[in-house]
Amino acid sequence: MSKKQNKEGLNVKKEENFSEWYSQILDKAEVTDLRYNVKGFVVIRPWGAMSIENMYSIYEKALQKKGHKPTFFPVVIPEKNFKKEASHVKGFKPEVFWLEKIKGEDRLALRPTSETAMYQMYSLWIRSHRDLPLKLYQRANVFRYETKATRPLIRAREFYWIEAHDCFATRKEADAQVQQDIETTEEVMHQQFGIPFLPMKRPFWDKFAGANYTIAADVLMPDNKIIQQPSTHLLEQSFAKSFDIKFKNEEGKENYVWQTCYGPAISRILASVIAIHGDDSGLVMPFCISPIQVAIIPIYNKENKNQLLEETEKIANILRELDLKVEVDDSEKRPGEKYHHWELKGVPFRLEIGEKELKEKSLTLFTRDTKVKEKIKLKDLEKFTDFGREFDTRLKLKADGFMKNKIQTCKNKQEIKKALNQGKIVRANFCSMEKEGIPCAEIIEKEFNADVRGTLGNKKEVPKGKCAICNKTATEVVYIGKSY
Amino acid sequence: MSKKQNKEGLNVKKEENFSEWYSQILDKAEVTDLRYNVKGFVVIRPWGAMSIENMYSIYEKALQKKGHKPTFFPVVIPEKNFKKEASHVKGFKPEVFWLEKIKGEDRLALRPTSETAMYQMYSLWIRSHRDLPLKLYQRANVFRYETKATRPLIRAREFYWIEAHDCFATRKEADAQVQQDIETTEEVMHQQFGIPFLPMKRPFWDKFAGANYTIAADVLMPDNKIIQQPSTHLLEQSFAKSFDIKFKNEEGKENYVWQTCYGPAISRILASVIAIHGDDSGLVMPFCISPIQVAIIPIYNKENKNQLLEETEKIANILRELDLKVEVDDSEKRPGEKYHHWELKGVPFRLEIGEKELKEKSLTLFTRDTKVKEKIKLKDLEKFTDFGREFDTRLKLKADGFMKNKIQTCKNKQEIKKALNQGKIVRANFCSMEKEGIPCAEIIEKEFNADVRGTLGNKKEVPKGKCAICNKTATEVVYIGKSY
Repeated sequence: MSKKQNKEGLNVKKEENFSEWYSQILDKAEVTDLRYNVKGFVVIRPWGAMSIENMYSIYEKALQKKGHKPTFFPVVIPEKNFKKEASHVKGFKPEVFWLEKIKGEDRLALRPTSETAMYQMYSLWIRSHRDLPLKLYQRANVFRYETKATRPLIRAREFYWIEAHDCFATRKEADAQVQQDIETTEEVMHQQFGIPFLPMKRPFWDKFAGANYTIAADVLMPDNKIIQQPSTHLLEQSFAKSFDIKFKNEEGKENYVWQTCYGPAISRILASVIAIHGDDSGLVMPFCISPIQVAIIPIYNKENKNQLLEETEKIANILRELDLKVEVDDSEKRPGEKYHHWELKGVPFRLEIGEKELKEKSLTLFTRDTKVKEKIKLKDLEKFTDFGREFDTRLKLKADGFMKNKIQTCKNKQEIKKALNQGKIVRANFCSMEKEGIPCAEIIEKEFNADVRGTLGNKKEVPKGKCAICNKTATEVVYIGKSY
Repeated sequence: MSKKQNKEGLNVKKEENFSEWYSQILDKAEVTDLRYNVKGFVVIRPWGAMSIENMYSIYEKALQKKGHKPTFFPVVIPEKNFKKEASHVKGFKPEVFWLEKIKGEDRLALRPTSETAMYQMYSLWIRSHRDLPLKLYQRANVFRYETKATRPLIRAREFYWIEAHDCFATRKEADAQVQQDIETTEEVMHQQFGIPFLPMKRPFWDKFAGANYTIAADVLMPDNKIIQQPSTHLLEQSFAKSFDIKFKNEEGKENYVWQTCYGPAISRILASVIAIHGDDSGLVMPFCISPIQVAIIPIYNKENKNQLLEETEKIANILRELDLKVEVDDSEKRPGEKYHHWELKGVPFRLEIGEKELKEKSLTLFTRDTKVKEKIKLKDLEKFTDFGREFDTRLKLKADGFMKNKIQTCKNKQEIKKALNQGKIVRANFCSMEKEGIPCAEIIEKEFNADVRGTLGNKKEVPKGKCAICNKTATEVVYIGKSY
């Protein structure tokens, strides 16, 4: 390997030092740049931006299919709006960036989330049961004044998300929407992006500011720490009352609406995609996300350059006809450098075409995740869409395997301690998810530096036995883990 | 017409009161909502948001085809960055929103435009001629503290745009990029969205803060006032020097890069699309932009409801197979109300299907711009993609016709005054686009309440004769008009 390749590639192993590996991969694959001169704000470079765009597109399509419609709300929210919902303002106040006050105008915040921007408009738009359900979302940049250490894509002061805010006539429909949101996470983040998760109904003490309950998708990162991915909240009627969102039912009686909200943070999901699928050669991008799906490397000398580039372009066009994102790398670099470059970028497939391939009417195919190099016939190019699907399925199954082995049922503190030290997520009986459970949760935090993440959010597990901490009768089966 | 229809529809004619017509159409077609409680910030409702998304998608595809790549830069810019380019800070300072200062951190602005955010990174990314050209863009919300009266989509304190920022090794390439940007405006805004424009090279006194020259797309609105649409700027080397963006050429010599930037404001282009194509029945959305391209109205009674809905769904699926955006309106409203609703929304095509149509194996097709109602055979459904293309061509030709008749060549002040009073754009000989021309421009402003918009930006017109104002030898042919 040349000196240049060493410089471009990763010089740390994911298993040995995940944190350094993660930093290096973002930098060297040119996903982000941390040198922007404001603390906690990063620049997303083209490879990251194109991935995020593709993820947005997949996510928005899934939401629109389920009846959500896009909107754009202002980035600024008056302070008085925040004050309307008491627990919400308490939960978010320290995390807000404020604008310098303009004389004669209200003090304005940069949105940390848009409940208090959107719901005042909902109260104008909803009059009758015929206006329900109302299911709107926006793709938006949001802002949190983080005081904890920030990490690119994982915790930043600005991030890129979708927030869906829905209103219903009944609690039953709102509860069903929360379940539909979990299904959307499953359908998109797991089935398409290959990121498994536990849908965790958060304990009473850890729900969203202003919510009745919260169900969040907990994802295990390669360093065995949990990161929270999309969460969905039943807001009950608290915001509806604060913002006066009422409808007349069929009998003409006025009621407050029932609300839910759902927030997939696209840039943060990209962090999980990078962390979970990547390897020691660089990124491994899911076929459905990768900005380039097939990189074609023509290998030529002075004599056959024109002919080879021509053939390469033909092959590229066959693949483009299949709606694939194809790049022909005809740059001045040597073939080895090019291979290295596209592996680092995580492009799912690389096709090599040289004199030999031309003669044999075949191509050399390198597949990024398996690192298998094989010959394929020209006529098999039409199978690339299938190859792509199979690629994503392999990534998913591999990630599923990692996650599955990580959940361990424990009966007592000794077992919990041991399992956590082995990097596991603990499954255990627990006394209570309400206020009464706080002392046991505090023990877990103090003694094991871990959190009670919650109970399964899409099905009820019935505990048999005692709380693993206090030995009182258990009412819940909870999951415990270390988190970011 | 029922009372309900009157309430939903427009009650003013575009020709009689454009300003009121424009306000009503945004409100009644549910494009925007002005009732957000912060001055100058509006809410974009689903119909507007989906249109903007489609416009972004078309625009970004055109840019990517020409080698521009997407990025996301932070929304906040430190004050010290602004101060680096003196004329830029002077041009933008009064228009900036500032964040409340955080102790120990720099004072931050909300980006009014991103030169001073992006170029510090460019200086890190560009080292050698091999890194050039660098052509990056971002889709972004930007913020201007407007003190003039705001108008929804036209002048707001937050708007949605694309900003492309490019670096080149030579001035020649940079000049060529400016011309390519004008071609992109032509290709997208004119050829696809149907909005004709004059590419105006602005006079010296009206160029972008920090630019060597500016060429902006001037669009004539139905009230005969000019609105500035995408502008492109040769930044020369002023920013490169301030932000130290240097490259080593092939001989190893260091040079500053030459820069350009280009800024299509998508939300503002939507204003022109709405204003120029709309009519007294509501919006007329270009086929390529409309969130719904074909609305299908089943007309049924109790007996045939199921059969009709089934047939309707079959027809919808045939059209969806063609990749068309189709909506079946099976709501409880009466057919007349539905017709009215989709006309107001500007959906290009409406298909009606009832008992009669079913028997005759035909459909009733209503075309929004021509208002022609005709029968089409079921087998002709496959022609809808062509219908769509023809629809957009008709809108463009109509808009071209309006614009063409509006340019009038004038020889002196009397003629200029008369032409401007008739709502024309004046074409006239002019003394100078440099400092020396300012007195004549001031006369035009004072006496006619109009501006010298500039000279043609994509070809040189040679004047024969004297300046229409001061009678000195003319050096330029300029265009003069009233503007927003």
